[in-house]
Amino acid sequence: MPFSRRKTKSIRLRPQQHHPQSCGEKLANRWQDGLFLCVGLDSDYEQLPTHLHSAFPNVQDSLFEFNRQIIVATARWVSAFKPNLAFYEQSGLPGLMALKRTCDFLKKNYPDIPIILDAKRGDIGNTNRGYATSFFDYYGADAVTVQPYLGREALVPFLSHSDKHIFVLCRTSNPGGAEIQKLLVEGEPLYLKIARLVQDDWNRLDNVGLVAGATYPEEIAAIRAVAPDLPLLIPGVGSQGGDLVSALKNGLDRHGGGVIINSSRSIIYASEGEDFAEAAGKEAEKVATEIRRIIG
Amino acid sequence: MPFSRRKTKSIRLRPQQHHPQSCGEKLANRWQDGLFLCVGLDSDYEQLPTHLHSAFPNVQDSLFEFNRQIIVATARWVSAFKPNLAFYEQSGLPGLMALKRTCDFLKKNYPDIPIILDAKRGDIGNTNRGYATSFFDYYGADAVTVQPYLGREALVPFLSHSDKHIFVLCRTSNPGGAEIQKLLVEGEPLYLKIARLVQDDWNRLDNVGLVAGATYPEEIAAIRAVAPDLPLLIPGVGSQGGDLVSALKNGLDRHGGGVIINSSRSIIYASEGEDFAEAAGKEAEKVATEIRRIIG
Repeated sequence: MPFSRRKTKSIRLRPQQHHPQSCGEKLANRWQDGLFLCVGLDSDYEQLPTHLHSAFPNVQDSLFEFNRQIIVATARWVSAFKPNLAFYEQSGLPGLMALKRTCDFLKKNYPDIPIILDAKRGDIGNTNRGYATSFFDYYGADAVTVQPYLGREALVPFLSHSDKHIFVLCRTSNPGGAEIQKLLVEGEPLYLKIARLVQDDWNRLDNVGLVAGATYPEEIAAIRAVAPDLPLLIPGVGSQGGDLVSALKNGLDRHGGGVIINSSRSIIYASEGEDFAEAAGKEAEKVATEIRRIIG
Repeated sequence: MPFSRRKTKSIRLRPQQHHPQSCGEKLANRWQDGLFLCVGLDSDYEQLPTHLHSAFPNVQDSLFEFNRQIIVATARWVSAFKPNLAFYEQSGLPGLMALKRTCDFLKKNYPDIPIILDAKRGDIGNTNRGYATSFFDYYGADAVTVQPYLGREALVPFLSHSDKHIFVLCRTSNPGGAEIQKLLVEGEPLYLKIARLVQDDWNRLDNVGLVAGATYPEEIAAIRAVAPDLPLLIPGVGSQGGDLVSALKNGLDRHGGGVIINSSRSIIYASEGEDFAEAAGKEAEKVATEIRRIIG
């Protein structure tokens, strides 16, 4: 229901407002155009092509230039870009300056493509206000990933932004995620209990989604069954080995949308040479075409 | 057991090595000196005394100067300092520069006092490596707070640092924490299940502790019962209204140590005037003296 509403609204708005403002509208438009791939800008200074290290002697410039070229080469194939903050924080302030410039570049040149800041934050409400200010105001992100452990009340500083999307960690893609996420709560695994809480209660402003790893496709199906209306951010295809076909088939909502398939390393590091951006573009095209073929 | 081991070691090492290197040694020394208070450097640019805004026209300098004066005024009363990253991130890069300078100042002038970076991070292992690099190498923190939701495997990049301490969120101080943390898992609340996992399995290098809010003192007692060996980082006294007496009585380990009582706003914002540092020092002395009286 929320999806069909959003789609209708975005279609109606399109002629009047060329650049939709809310994350929900941006995503609905990209899905309508058959775009489901998200490129994860997990750009690690140590792993950049060596010619960039030579051409741009400082961390900030080389990280930004890498991102800029990846974005230009892949933008036409994506539903969203998702920088993970850890890869920038590890380079200290120069890394975060590169992230800020990347977000500014995206907002200026690709205002229709949502920026999902993969931050996985979660603090008490008073403190989450600081993070929300950082992500939404300072970096200008359209969406953010958050932890569920402190409950809905703590997340209100994120959830109250009706024009943003909040993706709550549900079933993560890592091998050890089951240790906590599959603990049985009232007869069902914790991750399903959380999916249910988000669907039934946390999504009051129609701006909340879930993170569900492609490495556990059967669990994506279980999540989709209890959370029919929530967009799913699905990491884990590519280097982590998640299965694209079953992740997609299990994740799509009843309108044939509602999924964001993230791939990071296998796209951004498709080549270590001077052709890295071209190779990333080709890999993004390949995955995007494969997704379109599977969805049919 | 691990505590008595650590204590013995630190006593033996003291004459040879004036500045102990590991977080465990630093904490054991502070506890031995009767110091259990932690000052939370949750320094919000908007809340600084107005004379600092005038004297230091940029964010970085005024935030750092505030921290520097608070640290100098309170250091003799504390077991640790705990900056929460959200308050710096909300001011963008200038805020993080102030945090970096604060950590550098602490390491240079107070190398015996552990820096606990309150980051509450939690990502997959590959990504947590980036955060560990940021916190331990770039900022030089002695300890960090993390989320339990992705399981032990994801936390290995933190846990593998035997000289650092990792505080896992267990029972948080916020009013809505119970929504997830008190879900029943095999007949016990999730937070106790996590306390048990950390005590029995995650603490393999004797460097893991738990976060347990002073606002729920009975639950601190329940945590201490299943986790006799783990240090407890206890936020929530002061502005959040947690009860110091019961938090302490319920949290102390069998050696009369093992607790870090954090207070942030009620100390760092004790006065809005030019006497803010003096007022913070007096408030820290008051709480530290009260703690000593309660412990007896």
